[in-house]
Amino acid sequence: MSVTGGMSEETKPESMSLHPLCAAAPEPELMCIFGTGDLGRSLGQRLLQSGYRVVYGSRRPHSCGPLPQGAQVMSHAAAAQSASLIFICVHREHYGFLETMAPHLQAKVLVDLSNNLKKDMYPEANAVYLQRLVPGAAVVKGLNTLSAWALQNGLLAGKQVYLCGNSAEAKQAVAEMATKLGLTVLDRGSLSAARELEDFPLQLFPEWRLPLRVAIGLTAFFFFYLLIRDVIYAYVEKGEDISYRIMVSLANKVFPIVSLIMLSLCYLPGVIAAFLQLYRGTKYRRFPHWLDCWMLCRKQMGLIALGFAFLHAIYTFIIPIRYAVRHKLISRVVNEMKDNKTTPFYFDNTEAWATDSFYVLGILGFFLYVLLGLTSLPSVGGSLSWREFSFIQSKLGHLTLSICTAHGYVYGWNKFIRPSTYKWYTPPGYMLCLIVPSVVLVLKVLLLLPCVDHTLTRIRQGWERTGPREELSKSKAINL
Amino acid sequence: MSVTGGMSEETKPESMSLHPLCAAAPEPELMCIFGTGDLGRSLGQRLLQSGYRVVYGSRRPHSCGPLPQGAQVMSHAAAAQSASLIFICVHREHYGFLETMAPHLQAKVLVDLSNNLKKDMYPEANAVYLQRLVPGAAVVKGLNTLSAWALQNGLLAGKQVYLCGNSAEAKQAVAEMATKLGLTVLDRGSLSAARELEDFPLQLFPEWRLPLRVAIGLTAFFFFYLLIRDVIYAYVEKGEDISYRIMVSLANKVFPIVSLIMLSLCYLPGVIAAFLQLYRGTKYRRFPHWLDCWMLCRKQMGLIALGFAFLHAIYTFIIPIRYAVRHKLISRVVNEMKDNKTTPFYFDNTEAWATDSFYVLGILGFFLYVLLGLTSLPSVGGSLSWREFSFIQSKLGHLTLSICTAHGYVYGWNKFIRPSTYKWYTPPGYMLCLIVPSVVLVLKVLLLLPCVDHTLTRIRQGWERTGPREELSKSKAINL
Amino acid sequence: MSVTGGMSEETKPESMSLHPLCAAAPEPELMCIFGTGDLGRSLGQRLLQSGYRVVYGSRRPHSCGPLPQGAQVMSHAAAAQSASLIFICVHREHYGFLETMAPHLQAKVLVDLSNNLKKDMYPEANAVYLQRLVPGAAVVKGLNTLSAWALQNGLLAGKQVYLCGNSAEAKQAVAEMATKLGLTVLDRGSLSAARELEDFPLQLFPEWRLPLRVAIGLTAFFFFYLLIRDVIYAYVEKGEDISYRIMVSLANKVFPIVSLIMLSLCYLPGVIAAFLQLYRGTKYRRFPHWLDCWMLCRKQMGLIALGFAFLHAIYTFIIPIRYAVRHKLISRVVNEMKDNKTTPFYFDNTEAWATDSFYVLGILGFFLYVLLGLTSLPSVGGSLSWREFSFIQSKLGHLTLSICTAHGYVYGWNKFIRPSTYKWYTPPGYMLCLIVPSVVLVLKVLLLLPCVDHTLTRIRQGWERTGPREELSKSKAINL
Repeated sequence: MSVTGGMSEETKPESMSLHPLCAAAPEPELMCIFGTGDLGRSLGQRLLQSGYRVVYGSRRPHSCGPLPQGAQVMSHAAAAQSASLIFICVHREHYGFLETMAPHLQAKVLVDLSNNLKKDMYPEANAVYLQRLVPGAAVVKGLNTLSAWALQNGLLAGKQVYLCGNSAEAKQAVAEMATKLGLTVLDRGSLSAARELEDFPLQLFPEWRLPLRVAIGLTAFFFFYLLIRDVIYAYVEKGEDISYRIMVSLANKVFPIVSLIMLSLCYLPGVIAAFLQLYRGTKYRRFPHWLDCWMLCRKQMGLIALGFAFLHAIYTFIIPIRYAVRHKLISRVVNEMKDNKTTPFYFDNTEAWATDSFYVLGILGFFLYVLLGLTSLPSVGGSLSWREFSFIQSKLGHLTLSICTAHGYVYGWNKFIRPSTYKWYTPPGYMLCLIVPSVVLVLKVLLLLPCVDHTLTRIRQGWERTGPREELSKSKAINL
Repeated sequence: MSVTGGMSEETKPESMSLHPLCAAAPEPELMCIFGTGDLGRSLGQRLLQSGYRVVYGSRRPHSCGPLPQGAQVMSHAAAAQSASLIFICVHREHYGFLETMAPHLQAKVLVDLSNNLKKDMYPEANAVYLQRLVPGAAVVKGLNTLSAWALQNGLLAGKQVYLCGNSAEAKQAVAEMATKLGLTVLDRGSLSAARELEDFPLQLFPEWRLPLRVAIGLTAFFFFYLLIRDVIYAYVEKGEDISYRIMVSLANKVFPIVSLIMLSLCYLPGVIAAFLQLYRGTKYRRFPHWLDCWMLCRKQMGLIALGFAFLHAIYTFIIPIRYAVRHKLISRVVNEMKDNKTTPFYFDNTEAWATDSFYVLGILGFFLYVLLGLTSLPSVGGSLSWREFSFIQSKLGHLTLSICTAHGYVYGWNKFIRPSTYKWYTPPGYMLCLIVPSVVLVLKVLLLLPCVDHTLTRIRQGWERTGPREELSKSKAINL
Repeated sequence: MSVTGGMSEETKPESMSLHPLCAAAPEPELMCIFGTGDLGRSLGQRLLQSGYRVVYGSRRPHSCGPLPQGAQVMSHAAAAQSASLIFICVHREHYGFLETMAPHLQAKVLVDLSNNLKKDMYPEANAVYLQRLVPGAAVVKGLNTLSAWALQNGLLAGKQVYLCGNSAEAKQAVAEMATKLGLTVLDRGSLSAARELEDFPLQLFPEWRLPLRVAIGLTAFFFFYLLIRDVIYAYVEKGEDISYRIMVSLANKVFPIVSLIMLSLCYLPGVIAAFLQLYRGTKYRRFPHWLDCWMLCRKQMGLIALGFAFLHAIYTFIIPIRYAVRHKLISRVVNEMKDNKTTPFYFDNTEAWATDSFYVLGILGFFLYVLLGLTSLPSVGGSLSWREFSFIQSKLGHLTLSICTAHGYVYGWNKFIRPSTYKWYTPPGYMLCLIVPSVVLVLKVLLLLPCVDHTLTRIRQGWERTGPREELSKSKAINL
């Protein structure tokens, strides 16, 4: 049976017989949808809009509620016969009737769009279960990340959808249909990936979880640490109420601290991995699971660090318009006036250099930060060659880390020797936040030493310290 | 006749006969272009660069001006015979000659690239007219958004083009060609969409018009309203000339007001739609036309609101470096000095908390605003699953609106009780701008009440208050 | 031989015989890889993950080191026989053995992934050399921008790769495979493009070089120019040490100057090209090479200009929190206080207007700058129609240039008449930076004069001042 189906034979105009390319009258392909629920209706409406003809399969073809205009409705068996591609818009619990219909579904492509309410509800994936019920059909799992709402409102352009299935031809047919609907199709291999696809709609930013937890944990720790050191210390020791500082001053200490630590946590796993490879003398043994997880969420860590840096920048810009700052400035002038007969008002050149250097390092660091963030955009990153992308992310990334770390060091350039800095014998926040970035940078410098770098490069090109060295070294010389 | 055409039979090398995949000598496909105007030449040049061979059809093959190097030129009939795909780069008024050539165009794919100077110039679309003239050919409308300039300068990578036509094979052939040129092809269905495609190049940001008009209207209204209340009031009542405030102070009141109203206008239609569905008890009746239009331009409204928020942020950052602000600060200190014998300079803790809270709410609101804007980027939004996208746009969107509204309320936290606020008995601008967001947030809270939320969720899953309830409720339980 | 290869005939389940679409048991395609080096292993692992079967061809099938789990390994000849697509992951120097294997490679698709260490190492491209060695196979050059690291870590989604080759079918087969791996394939035509493709991985931002050099040159020039005029002048003539100004004040003069000049350099080539076309009376003569190069890097110039403008904005925002600025403010108040008996503290309305206008022009210019930058993002620009894109880049671009130039003029609005401005008889930096933008804007206004605009429009539509005018003018009227 042809793809366009037998139903339309009578409607073919004579001009069609001249040549297959000649199409004076449109003869759109027929799609079958089992199930007249919300998703089924929305999908049908969308298919009709994209120029397909649609037939619904229903148990009660005459009383199945409102359907999109232009769609036909028949019994399941009749509908299945007329089309080669059938969308199964039915809950998994009701798949049973499909088994009885198996003879009508021979050699059809069945698209399973179903999702479950939670993970591991059933021992096997819905699509695998469907394939078992109807072994003679080609089941394709996919499109299940689309909502009825998105289908109804035409919000599909450029949306990524996933497919999997055992038949390449069946997947090809579904992919072509999806492309016509404006979707971007990603093939995920055989039907064994169905469970993974069915879990997709249940996930909410899975790769962001670990970085977000780290960010929240660090923020909470440093917030309370600085609250105790700054506000509570002042209240207990001096009886001053400086709680108004919580909103801006304290937050503007926490944000850069967390941002710098998160940024250094982006580059730490790469350094650890390099030392692990050096220690093992090979790149062919898998990293520990925690290191793999860590490396996979570096991009998200970097973007969260950028978010905190962005907040830090804006908090800094509004400093001079704050009431407390203006009040302090005016008070200082007033006090200055009272005293200016005795002490002349002195301009400290070193102080000017130090504060300006501090600001400039911060600005340059933020600028590079934003540049790194821009290359994380899918459309920008995708247009870079691999060498360019790794140049940006590695070279520019380490430069950003160095500049931001220097920004932190200049902040405390002469404070660390003053005893008043160590309230209640605790170090200030900026000292704590410099530990991780300093360690990363020192380790990175070690890795850049010529002898270490040379060994690492050889390992990354496939060389192994032990093993069938003679044979291998020969094949290395030949193979890419 | 094969796609590569009969002309090249003699040039086929012997090795070709071994196997179709074996291609020691290149045998590129031949494309035919009718018309040697600017678009025809540019298209030909581009096709040649992409590895095609090109033949032009011309009425005067020997005197048709400069053509791209490597292209052939023949009579229309001879050129048409040699290729299976013909680009019609001729003005619609001259399509007449194609009717006489119809026998030569049997079973050819004709690509209609023409545009009109204005809408509704002709009773039928150019491509439909062409199909009527040459019924034996397969007309494909498309690529008409490309300019000769873009073709000449290779600015095609990733550019979206639209196709429509009645023959799937013909569209496939054109789509493959366009993909090789680096274009992204979107299929718009049958030839009946041709008029829509011909109107595309005449449009300039059609979906931005309504939001821009709303933004301009609101800006103008609030500008004059505040001009009267602030500058003219001061001049008339106190004789002061504070016109210098127009440039920054007044603009920096108008921008946040318009931004907040535009943001709330993004979320108002969704709330109205929800109440309409609750009232009707079904989701299957279409919304009124004005509501549909409004919902479709929410993204543009939000982006314009973000633009105004961005301007508001920068206007705020430069406040302290303004001459007027510095002057006021210095004057204040000078006055302070004169009086400081009598009244001590007092630090108001509540004022410090209030202003800092005001700034912090503004910063967080702006941060979330930018986040919302980033997910509007096609490449970022496309990589999110539906659940993630709706989480960002709905949950985060309402949070942004709440924070920005709170920013507005804190601004006027104790001003609204002072009589001096109501100059000439008019409320200040910030009060007016809080009306719409407050209404939206109150309605949204009503919708989140458990009983309302439950009913709405059922309606959105396809439940209807009236209708063939027994049958339907059963099919609902089965269908997705 | 079928694509799936002869090896798997025995494993086909019975259900396959029912219908080609029916695929109860997966039968993935078999890919062959010559070479068991790092790239070969990574590619094989990736192919296995995407659902292919993989067989390696090796000279020592039993001692070739660790290979991905699930892959087979055979002799070169046996491996080649079993698959229709063979990846050549061997260094070019060892291609020799492929010549002896030519009989086994008849009608196979050979994918050449090799790169060279530097340009022009060999007289012919690696892929062309391979095609010459094995004339009976279809060589496809491509995928050579992928690194083993990217393949191993699945960082392929949306990555652009290039293909070229003489056989369309072979390229199609490789493109399908690459698409399944999640890559975006761009066809670069016949095998003659192989050298270009082999040079890609050797390039690091080639189109950014010229703009970056111009930016660095301008930055260096203006830095030293202003260093001499400001810091050294003050030291030599007045004995003051104001070296602390280098970090922020001086940089914040250099950045806007370079930004404005770079922005005007984006629009200068377009204006030059227009005058050249007017002078020549035709658009069909090529521009000089330098003008072509210049026009092709306008986007990069504009983005660098945006980067400098971004730095200028942030440098401006932090002005009021600088030590030197606060010190100056306090000193001024103190001095004010001493003198305020004699001279009243006067508010200059004109000064307030001038400085506010200066800031507002800067802010609006920066806003439009950012808007221009956003439309340069591939995913945003790609979704605009040509008319929209040219509206943004041309109309909005020239508006941005006008506003930024006005920003510069207002800066020096009354300074240029003071003799103290011309230290050591040199003009200040802002004057120098206004020259190019002013020239561009004046030339652009000339081009917009109705008579000039009319002629230019005709020329751009293909009209020529000389030539076979009768014939041409007729065909112009007909052709698009």
